[in-house]
Amino acid sequence: MGKGMSHSQGIDSQEQGTEQDRQHMRQALELASRGSGHTSPNPVVGSVVVRRDTVVGRGYHQKAGGPHAEINALRDAGREAVGSTLYVTLEPCNHFGRTPPCTHAILDAGISRVVMGMMDPNPKVEGGGASFLEKNGVSITRRVLEKECRQQNQAFIKHSISGLPHVTLKAAATLDGRIATRTGDSRWITNEESRSFVHELRAELDAILVGIGTVLADDPQLTARLPSEFPIPQPVRVVVDSRLQIPVQSRLIETARDVPLWIACGEDAPLDREEPLLERGAQVLRLPLTDNHVHLKSLLKELGKLPLTSVLVEGGAQILGAFIEEGLADAFHFFFAPKILGDPKGIPMIRGKLREKMAEAIPTHGMRVRCFGEDVMLSGRFQENLY
Amino acid sequence: MGKGMSHSQGIDSQEQGTEQDRQHMRQALELASRGSGHTSPNPVVGSVVVRRDTVVGRGYHQKAGGPHAEINALRDAGREAVGSTLYVTLEPCNHFGRTPPCTHAILDAGISRVVMGMMDPNPKVEGGGASFLEKNGVSITRRVLEKECRQQNQAFIKHSISGLPHVTLKAAATLDGRIATRTGDSRWITNEESRSFVHELRAELDAILVGIGTVLADDPQLTARLPSEFPIPQPVRVVVDSRLQIPVQSRLIETARDVPLWIACGEDAPLDREEPLLERGAQVLRLPLTDNHVHLKSLLKELGKLPLTSVLVEGGAQILGAFIEEGLADAFHFFFAPKILGDPKGIPMIRGKLREKMAEAIPTHGMRVRCFGEDVMLSGRFQENLY
Repeated sequence: MGKGMSHSQGIDSQEQGTEQDRQHMRQALELASRGSGHTSPNPVVGSVVVRRDTVVGRGYHQKAGGPHAEINALRDAGREAVGSTLYVTLEPCNHFGRTPPCTHAILDAGISRVVMGMMDPNPKVEGGGASFLEKNGVSITRRVLEKECRQQNQAFIKHSISGLPHVTLKAAATLDGRIATRTGDSRWITNEESRSFVHELRAELDAILVGIGTVLADDPQLTARLPSEFPIPQPVRVVVDSRLQIPVQSRLIETARDVPLWIACGEDAPLDREEPLLERGAQVLRLPLTDNHVHLKSLLKELGKLPLTSVLVEGGAQILGAFIEEGLADAFHFFFAPKILGDPKGIPMIRGKLREKMAEAIPTHGMRVRCFGEDVMLSGRFQENLY
Repeated sequence: MGKGMSHSQGIDSQEQGTEQDRQHMRQALELASRGSGHTSPNPVVGSVVVRRDTVVGRGYHQKAGGPHAEINALRDAGREAVGSTLYVTLEPCNHFGRTPPCTHAILDAGISRVVMGMMDPNPKVEGGGASFLEKNGVSITRRVLEKECRQQNQAFIKHSISGLPHVTLKAAATLDGRIATRTGDSRWITNEESRSFVHELRAELDAILVGIGTVLADDPQLTARLPSEFPIPQPVRVVVDSRLQIPVQSRLIETARDVPLWIACGEDAPLDREEPLLERGAQVLRLPLTDNHVHLKSLLKELGKLPLTSVLVEGGAQILGAFIEEGLADAFHFFFAPKILGDPKGIPMIRGKLREKMAEAIPTHGMRVRCFGEDVMLSGRFQENLY
């Protein structure tokens, strides 16, 4: 398989490597996941060094700016690395970035074989690390548990390819698909277990985004609140608010000095409303409008530049609908709680465009189910294939 | 535990019997399930005869009017029954009905111990079979896997207690909770696997009920269609149609001579519309109206008298809402298909009464999840406890 293929063709359905290779790669995947929420805009990466089928070194990328997974695993292995096999969930880098290239460190450590999960998603450098190592006499096995490795880094891959953050929609509804009563009341639909999972999600993703309607209805904080001895990584909070209607007394504005807050408004939003927001620590992002709504793709481009690689869109129905209809949504987590609102005027989960035929409905893929007590979370993605 | 307790208190949370008892009862439960769809208005019942921990006889209630499960198991055991233990999912009957009392047959066969799953739900006879056997020197163990045994016979129990059929709601929606477009188009939301499960449900329950709106929109047949060498048991089809609007050219009317069809209308529905329906083999049931709608509890009472012990309500939104709001729904199966309609004017799953607060939503209980390909079915019940 050569360079330059599209991402969806890049996943080889044939299983690569031996069963032992896959077993060690699974451990590398587990190590990688420990960096979740701390590595952006870098990927999560895990690595193990294996000598005669015994793991002698373990490492993962702990946070952006810190050493790469391979370096940590090689350090852990020490002299045992000589003649050993290194497993790593992502192709080792071959260029000087914030850190020297991992390929050099691998050669210097005397590693004789490298097993890689996925190749670098950047088409400009894809395969470079593997080729360099191969030319220098290292045996290479590519794409072992590739699907699992890609799954773990969907946001990183999408951002690498497109410059846009990976967009996950979240909604919490009654069994009859209502996210609030017609008066806007939505407390609470889901149970504590589900809400706690949402806080975990917030801590893992780079940004949370809501529409101004949700701010006016719920006055949310949109922070990640979890029981922990350690500081929780906080997402950037983004409000789509074309006319700068956000109240200065809102909890978002009140906490803007502690947790970053971006207000995305129209280019022509009133200047006198901007001033008090800036004074309180919020950032204002002026963007083109289409049909009086902030142009969401432009917003995503700006967020991608910050760089934010992942966004959780938490509502409301209008914003969720806009992301779906504009083809900007990648994945979803929809919670269904064990209750029925019944009210035909309750607020629906999604307000998109009119469709006369059921056959025109937008398909989703890769459905997964997770239960939180009696709440059920249905998750999936909008693209047929993984990035 | 004495007689006369309410059904919800009747289930002992403490596990009864030995692990071996539970193992044999599980086999009896499995045998019972083979009668599913054929025994109404009787319960499904399974029985095994066990001699020195070896099963020497198996039986189940195959169809209404046929021998009871215990009789079949005793016949299968033959002379091995002497001194053996009989397991049965439901307390043996102690009265002369269509068949002589099973308690007598058990004594005659020389059974020395009887293990029962659940007691007779009819408070007038509950415990009678067990006491009779006990007085005649048979050792009795009660309520082994009682919850599982009750679960299997929810419709029979509810009908025994109340005279009303057990009501299960079914809906098939997109992920955003829409059962049709605003034009009424709903073909197809779910996949073939899900639809095939619905046909299995129809074959197992006594009746299918829909509102006239669904008939006008979909022109359904409401029969159970399954690949099978044997004739499929067909449910009675019921249409709630207060003003007798059902078209004589509808597929329901066209098939009324082959599969029973009941049209439930108001007492004052036009007589000239009744005539052509009767001519084509449909039955017309005149019932009191409330707010121009057929009084659903009166309808259920009539169906219970037929006797039908279970009804599957397949929509639409108005009928589902009415059953829920009037407290007449017992259970639900809601399918969610991997697609999003998006249209804010799509038809919601349930049209009940207005509710200002989310806290007023109607709770459901016992959530279970089952996947059919990428479709997900969420099931549960409206009562906190099993019948």
